[in-house]
Amino acid sequence: MIRNLAPPFLASYRVPSMTDHVTVKISALASFLTQMFEHYGFPHEDAAFITETLIDSDRRGIASHGLQRVALYENKLRQHTIDPAAASVIATDVLACAVIDGHDGIGQLISRNAMDLAIHKANEYGIGMVAVRGSNHFGAAGIYARMAADQGLVGIVATNSFALVVPTHANVPALGSNPLAFAVGSGDNQFVFDAATCTVSLGKIEILAKINQPIPGAWAVNEQGDLEHNAGAALATILRAEQGGLTPLGGIGEIESGHKGYGLGLMVEILTSVLSGGISSLDLKGQGVCHWFTAVKLDAFGGADAVAERLAELFNRLRSLPSSDGQPVIIPGDKERTHEALHTDTLSVDRATYKELQSIAQRLGLRAPGRDPEADTSEDREAHMGQSEENPT
Amino acid sequence: MIRNLAPPFLASYRVPSMTDHVTVKISALASFLTQMFEHYGFPHEDAAFITETLIDSDRRGIASHGLQRVALYENKLRQHTIDPAAASVIATDVLACAVIDGHDGIGQLISRNAMDLAIHKANEYGIGMVAVRGSNHFGAAGIYARMAADQGLVGIVATNSFALVVPTHANVPALGSNPLAFAVGSGDNQFVFDAATCTVSLGKIEILAKINQPIPGAWAVNEQGDLEHNAGAALATILRAEQGGLTPLGGIGEIESGHKGYGLGLMVEILTSVLSGGISSLDLKGQGVCHWFTAVKLDAFGGADAVAERLAELFNRLRSLPSSDGQPVIIPGDKERTHEALHTDTLSVDRATYKELQSIAQRLGLRAPGRDPEADTSEDREAHMGQSEENPT
Repeated sequence: MIRNLAPPFLASYRVPSMTDHVTVKISALASFLTQMFEHYGFPHEDAAFITETLIDSDRRGIASHGLQRVALYENKLRQHTIDPAAASVIATDVLACAVIDGHDGIGQLISRNAMDLAIHKANEYGIGMVAVRGSNHFGAAGIYARMAADQGLVGIVATNSFALVVPTHANVPALGSNPLAFAVGSGDNQFVFDAATCTVSLGKIEILAKINQPIPGAWAVNEQGDLEHNAGAALATILRAEQGGLTPLGGIGEIESGHKGYGLGLMVEILTSVLSGGISSLDLKGQGVCHWFTAVKLDAFGGADAVAERLAELFNRLRSLPSSDGQPVIIPGDKERTHEALHTDTLSVDRATYKELQSIAQRLGLRAPGRDPEADTSEDREAHMGQSEENPT
Repeated sequence: MIRNLAPPFLASYRVPSMTDHVTVKISALASFLTQMFEHYGFPHEDAAFITETLIDSDRRGIASHGLQRVALYENKLRQHTIDPAAASVIATDVLACAVIDGHDGIGQLISRNAMDLAIHKANEYGIGMVAVRGSNHFGAAGIYARMAADQGLVGIVATNSFALVVPTHANVPALGSNPLAFAVGSGDNQFVFDAATCTVSLGKIEILAKINQPIPGAWAVNEQGDLEHNAGAALATILRAEQGGLTPLGGIGEIESGHKGYGLGLMVEILTSVLSGGISSLDLKGQGVCHWFTAVKLDAFGGADAVAERLAELFNRLRSLPSSDGQPVIIPGDKERTHEALHTDTLSVDRATYKELQSIAQRLGLRAPGRDPEADTSEDREAHMGQSEENPT
C-alpha cells in the first residue's frame, strides 16, 4: 500500500524555462503595448495601466500572465469580445460590500476599479469587498492584491476561469484554475501569495509541451481518468474540454488530499461567480469572467507599521531555517522580487511571443519593440535586422 | 523523470476507521460533559455550549476534534492552563475590525464571542473581522464558520497551532496545521469547507498508528527529510518537534506544488498570530493559540436566499457529474451532513476515548456516560457492567 516515491532529486524539480529567448528593452515594450491598446480605443492612461500590468508580470517572472497573453488580448479586441468602451457599473452597493458588472470590458481596468472601490470602502468601514461579473481575463491576481498592500492594507483577490480542473471523483472539467491571491506588507517583506487552486496552472504544461518534456507529477488526467505525463497530450485534452483536465491541488483522489484543492477551487467559485451572480467556470467560454476583491485596513490590528514589523520578524525566522535540499526557505513574493530587481531595463521574451508582438505591430502599422542592441549576438542581430522596429510595415 | 505512480485503487483510499468502538447515547454524553465542565467552574450555559461543539464534531464524523479531545481539555483545566474564569477582552476595535485577547480561556467560548462580534459587525458594516490571541484549542474550525452560515452570512475561520508542518525546502516544523474553514448557505446545500493546510491533519496519522497501518501518501517526513510511511515513527517524530514533521498540502518540494500548501499555511499564520499580535506557531507550546473570524452579510450580493439558490444550482450540477472511480462527486459539507443524519441518538466512541471518559467520571465523582444498552452485545455488556454509570466512583 506504499506509494512509490520519486527520487529525492525530483523534490526540487522546477519547470525548465525555454532557452530560445530574445532580450528586449522594457521601454520599447511599454511604448509598443501602450500604442497598441490606444489603437483599440483605450485612453492613454488606461492603455499605460494595462501595459504596466503585463510588463509587471514578466518582470516578476510570471511570464505566463505577461507578454505571452498580448496576442490573446489583441485577438479579443479585434473580435470585439473585449469592449474598450465598456464602463464598469456598480450593480449593487450595501455598506462595505458591492457588486460590479464589467459589461465585457478588459479585465485589468475593471479590476483596478473594483480594487479601488474595495480600498475606498476599507477606508470608510475598515474592510471593503467587491465581487465582479461580466469581466475578462485580468492577468495575474497578485497585481490587484499588491495594489492594496502597497497602500498599507491587506489585499485578497480571486477569479474564476473557463473549466479545466476535474473535481475529486469526476473526470469532467468543472472548475477554472480559480487562483487566490493574498498580499500584505511592504518592501522586502511584502507577502504575495498568488496561486491557482489546481496543482499547476495551464501555463506550466504549455511550456513543457513547447519544449517536449514530460510532466513530472500528478498534474493532469487524460480522457480515461489516468494520470497524463505527456505534456502535449495533456494540453490537447484540456483544450478539448470534454473529459480529463488539470488535477486540483493535492492531485486526483483523496490520498494526497486532492479534495482540499477541489474545495478551495469551489470556495473561489463561490466568492466570484456565486457572490456576483455571474457565470460559473462550468459555463465560461471566454467572456463573463468573475472576480472577487477584498481590502482590509490594519488600524484595528496595530496599524500597517506594527504589522510590517511582525511580518519581518516571522519571515526572517522562516528564511533562516536550514535548507533540507540546498534550496533556501523563502516567503511567497521573495522569488518574484528577486526576478524584478534583475529586470529593471530589459526583459527576456520567448521567441514565439516576440514574433507575435512583431506580427501585431506590422498589422497595426506600429513601431515594433526591437531587441536590445547591447544584448544582441551577431546571429541575433541578423535576424533582428530583417524584422526590426525600423520596418514596422 | 516520471514519478512512479500509485495503483489506481489507491486513488480512492480513505483512512480506515478503528473497529473497536462502543455505542453511547448522545444524551448521556451531553449530560456527563456538561457536568464535567460545570465541575471546573463554567456556568451551565457555557458548559453546555462547549459540550455541544464536541458532540457536534463526532456527530459529523470529525472524531479527531470531538470526544477524543475531552481528556486533553480536562487535563488543561486540571493543570490550570485553561482558565474557566477568563473573560475575553476586546483589545482594539476599529469599525468593522477588532482584536480579542482570550486571556487563556477555553477556545470554544472565546471563539463563540469572537464570531458573535464578527456577525454583529457584519450586521452594522456589511462585514466583520475579528482576530484573536491568547486562546486555546477551539475544536473544529467549521463550527464557527457554520455559526455565521446558519444566520445567512458567509463565515470564514482560521487558527494557528503548535508547529508541526515543515516549510518547503526546510525540515524543521515551523507552521501549525493552520486550518481554514469557509461556510455559506443552508440545509442540504450548506457549503462547509474545513481543512488543515497540511496534506493531512495529525489525527489521521494518530489513527493509522493506533491500528498499525502504513501511511499511504506523502504526508510526513522523518528526521532525515525523507518521506516517512511508518505511522508510529511519523507520530514520534512529530511529537519530538525537532526535525521532520507533516508536509504542507502538495507534499514536499515543488513538484506537486507543496509550496502552495506552505503559502496557504503562512497566510493563515498572518491572519491569526500576525494580525492579532499573538504567538506564532513557531513559539506555541499549548497556550496562546490565535484565531481569525470573518462574517460577511449577503445583502450586496442579492441576499441570502438568492445566494442559496445559486449555490443549489451549482452544487446540483457538480453532484450530477459522472463518477470516475465509483465514488460520488460531493460538495464539502455533504459527507458530514450524511454522518450527522445517521447519528441523532447515539455515537460510536473508540474504546480508548471511552475509557478516558470513564476514568474522568470516576475521578471527579460524576455519573459516567454508559453504553447504549440496546446496542450492547453480551460481551460488551459484560465489560460494561464492570464499569458502568451505576458505579461512577
